[in-house]
Amino acid sequence: MNDKPKAVVLLSGGLGSTTALAIAMNEGFDARALTFRYGQRHEHEIEAAKHITKRFGVKQHVIAHIDLRLFGGSALTDDIEVPKERPLDKIGQAIPVTYVPARNTIFLSYALAWAEVLGARDIVIGVNALDYSGYPDCRQKYIDAYQTMANLATKAGIEGRQQLRIHTPLISLAKAQLIQRGLALGIEYGMTHSCYDPSPDGDACGLCDACILRLKGFAESGLADPAPYVVHAGTPA
Amino acid sequence: MNDKPKAVVLLSGGLGSTTALAIAMNEGFDARALTFRYGQRHEHEIEAAKHITKRFGVKQHVIAHIDLRLFGGSALTDDIEVPKERPLDKIGQAIPVTYVPARNTIFLSYALAWAEVLGARDIVIGVNALDYSGYPDCRQKYIDAYQTMANLATKAGIEGRQQLRIHTPLISLAKAQLIQRGLALGIEYGMTHSCYDPSPDGDACGLCDACILRLKGFAESGLADPAPYVVHAGTPA
Repeated sequence: MNDKPKAVVLLSGGLGSTTALAIAMNEGFDARALTFRYGQRHEHEIEAAKHITKRFGVKQHVIAHIDLRLFGGSALTDDIEVPKERPLDKIGQAIPVTYVPARNTIFLSYALAWAEVLGARDIVIGVNALDYSGYPDCRQKYIDAYQTMANLATKAGIEGRQQLRIHTPLISLAKAQLIQRGLALGIEYGMTHSCYDPSPDGDACGLCDACILRLKGFAESGLADPAPYVVHAGTPA
Repeated sequence: MNDKPKAVVLLSGGLGSTTALAIAMNEGFDARALTFRYGQRHEHEIEAAKHITKRFGVKQHVIAHIDLRLFGGSALTDDIEVPKERPLDKIGQAIPVTYVPARNTIFLSYALAWAEVLGARDIVIGVNALDYSGYPDCRQKYIDAYQTMANLATKAGIEGRQQLRIHTPLISLAKAQLIQRGLALGIEYGMTHSCYDPSPDGDACGLCDACILRLKGFAESGLADPAPYVVHAGTPA
């Protein structure tokens, strides 16, 4: 018998969403993971997501194929070069070319559809407003507006049956705190994948914004990142 | 030279969205049409949409393949039977099985992504609060909440550059008014497709909610519907 409330958890396979999944399960949710194959150049994160859901014993993991290359406009899906070795004080100051237009809005919309079919009233997204890349759709006020809209969009909203909540367990955590929280929950971060531009073997580049922020988080935790990196001159070992 | 503002118009190929497209073009927008192949059983509407954009001289028509069968939960995408011959006073009273969870939310999210890439600040959706099927995501308060969210979701929102508007030109029109408006704009409604459960040749069933509402609209306009119908005993000729 299982009385745990179901929650749809957006899982990219990265450090943040994996921690959000662990937190949701620790809080007693019956987590159902949703991952997108959206034409991203870093498809290795999808393999990471599969390993993670198996290891965590997640009951259901849907991988939705959606083609965000249809419209273009991002270095993560187009032939625009991923910026490398940007200084930390530049990251988060302006919206970078790795921004994918309306990505979280599309991801949350699929999560909403699935939540409605599952009868779940909780959606979990690992957005983080600190140590982030400057994306507009990672801010709490955006999430709040999404939740308001979602509660008008669905059967539940029209019937007044239940209120849908969008949980952002990582929103105010620094990367180092997030890593400490995840380690306390038993996450093996070597399984997670954050790099925007990995090698064909899936090794992280160590130079893109995602790698820089991740490595900073591990450094501030006083830990080595267990994930594999391509060896560059100057890459933290 | 073309100084017309671009607008992304959601086009199903049905009577409403086709009228919304004609209104947007008449109002001076450079309309770009967005249609979804989402696993619907009435795929004939996609062919209708292609004919319509050609006839209207729409500059760009994207057909996005998305699989809403992934989650199920609707008669339009599942093996649930489409209800037939429901009395008019029952239509719109409760959410029917033809409701597709979060469909308009997903459609608008793609429109938002495309609008952002195009630099368009206008999205047009042909939702209609009268003579409708009782879907929660066809109400103006839902659209308003979506617009608020969308303005926080995108680059434009974070930079305060522009405000995105979601236009609902049909929201308060009765089907008969809508048809009269469309005819005045030169729409050949024989090109549009509304039926949820057409024959293999694309003829409308005449019995599902969409057909009943459409036929009522034509009847109230004092006109015959030029679209092809399967002949049933009792089908309006």
